[in-house]
Amino acid sequence: MNKEEYFIKQFSNNKIIGDDGAFIDGFVYSMDAFFENVHFKKEWMSLKQIAYKSMIVNISDAIVMNAIPLYALLSVAIPKSYSNADLKELAKGFKKAAKKFGIQIIGGDTISNEKLDISITIISKTSNPILRSGVKKNDLLCYTGILGSCKKDLETLFENKPISKKSKFIKPKLKPYFFYEIAPFITASMDISDGLFFELEKLSKASKIGFEFFNEIDESIGSSGEEYEILFSFDEINLDKIKRIAKKHKVELNIFAKAIKGKYRTACKNHHF
Amino acid sequence: MNKEEYFIKQFSNNKIIGDDGAFIDGFVYSMDAFFENVHFKKEWMSLKQIAYKSMIVNISDAIVMNAIPLYALLSVAIPKSYSNADLKELAKGFKKAAKKFGIQIIGGDTISNEKLDISITIISKTSNPILRSGVKKNDLLCYTGILGSCKKDLETLFENKPISKKSKFIKPKLKPYFFYEIAPFITASMDISDGLFFELEKLSKASKIGFEFFNEIDESIGSSGEEYEILFSFDEINLDKIKRIAKKHKVELNIFAKAIKGKYRTACKNHHF
Repeated sequence: MNKEEYFIKQFSNNKIIGDDGAFIDGFVYSMDAFFENVHFKKEWMSLKQIAYKSMIVNISDAIVMNAIPLYALLSVAIPKSYSNADLKELAKGFKKAAKKFGIQIIGGDTISNEKLDISITIISKTSNPILRSGVKKNDLLCYTGILGSCKKDLETLFENKPISKKSKFIKPKLKPYFFYEIAPFITASMDISDGLFFELEKLSKASKIGFEFFNEIDESIGSSGEEYEILFSFDEINLDKIKRIAKKHKVELNIFAKAIKGKYRTACKNHHF
Repeated sequence: MNKEEYFIKQFSNNKIIGDDGAFIDGFVYSMDAFFENVHFKKEWMSLKQIAYKSMIVNISDAIVMNAIPLYALLSVAIPKSYSNADLKELAKGFKKAAKKFGIQIIGGDTISNEKLDISITIISKTSNPILRSGVKKNDLLCYTGILGSCKKDLETLFENKPISKKSKFIKPKLKPYFFYEIAPFITASMDISDGLFFELEKLSKASKIGFEFFNEIDESIGSSGEEYEILFSFDEINLDKIKRIAKKHKVELNIFAKAIKGKYRTACKNHHF
């Protein structure tokens, strides 16, 4: 158990780890930190890109619970060295993401700090939340898109080499319209932020279930974090419907495992540096 | 205009600075940062006290808007050096405050960081929010309790000398029962976190009004931050009711000014280090 898990374990209700967000009375409340030297280095991205990504990774949590994000609160710790032009860029990134997803930035806190540390709370609405605990025996497991590029890009960044501006690592591509349409036909979902293997471990714990892989998944794919692709499960009976919706939205599906009795644990280490 | 104000100005709706929290459809959403070396130094307080205070300063925002805090989300960046015993202490502080105010900790995020940086979101409920914009001409201005001790205690801490464990700087004393009872009879309110003079400037901006002081207020009182006393305004017609409620709850009232046409600006500097 790492430090974060030990800390979370102190909260007996354990709601703190349950899902990407907490579902209460039709609302989903989610909060994620996006800290300099933890989630990004300032050399890697522009301030606008950093602010944009910090919003997107939070909005992702709402979407994969089948919730419509409504409001955002921002806690932004800003280095003393930042110029007004820097602050303007930072604000632009937050506003761009908010506008794209129809979110109102309603409040928060700004303080002066040594590094740029952002925490965001998103308040969303849903009448049918999709949780991590819903995987049933014999369900099919699927992830969207292509995994692996974010791990490669992260390695490239660590070598002080540039990556494409179009990299998912810089600008994650969420799939809200696809997801809201498949939502009635799936049993569980979450986003892939820590890597597929890690998410599967969380899914296994939440649903008390194991997975039988159809083919071995390479570590370069399974341990690639920051992908913000969607991992979900569904009854085979809905396979055609889901395939049709995926085709309509041009989303690639990777059906890679079946839920079986048991539990799944990964031996991979967390990707955060 | 300082950096924080410039950043906030980028958000055109300006809701981000409006009140201690944002009021929407019966809910109040508030979020405050509580960062090491910005709001506290680790030598000053135990981890339990730090966590407790980080919750209390957030709960204070809800109370002064006449809202009942229901849920909390915690973003906690934890130094790698912390032992499991440290984490347990930290969790104890959060849980103590949550229990005291009947709040459920429903989620958040924990990450590994260089220093202890906490951001908290509180979700509260109210049918009658009290805002900063409600001060009317001729209203009386009042603050609760005794101001000044937190500034003194902060100075003592900076001299590396100890302060009393009972100091309001370590353990702010909120007055929810008093406040909820006076709420129907007041026109505006906020808590005193940055110091009375600063809060008056915010109140003046939000209500587009000035203040006529009955007596000069010393800087040792007016610029003492972290007090978490309550600043509020009311029509003189309600003076006796408010006095009676204050007596019942043993709360000291300081009626110090009258609202007049004009605006109020302070020359004092912010207390944050």
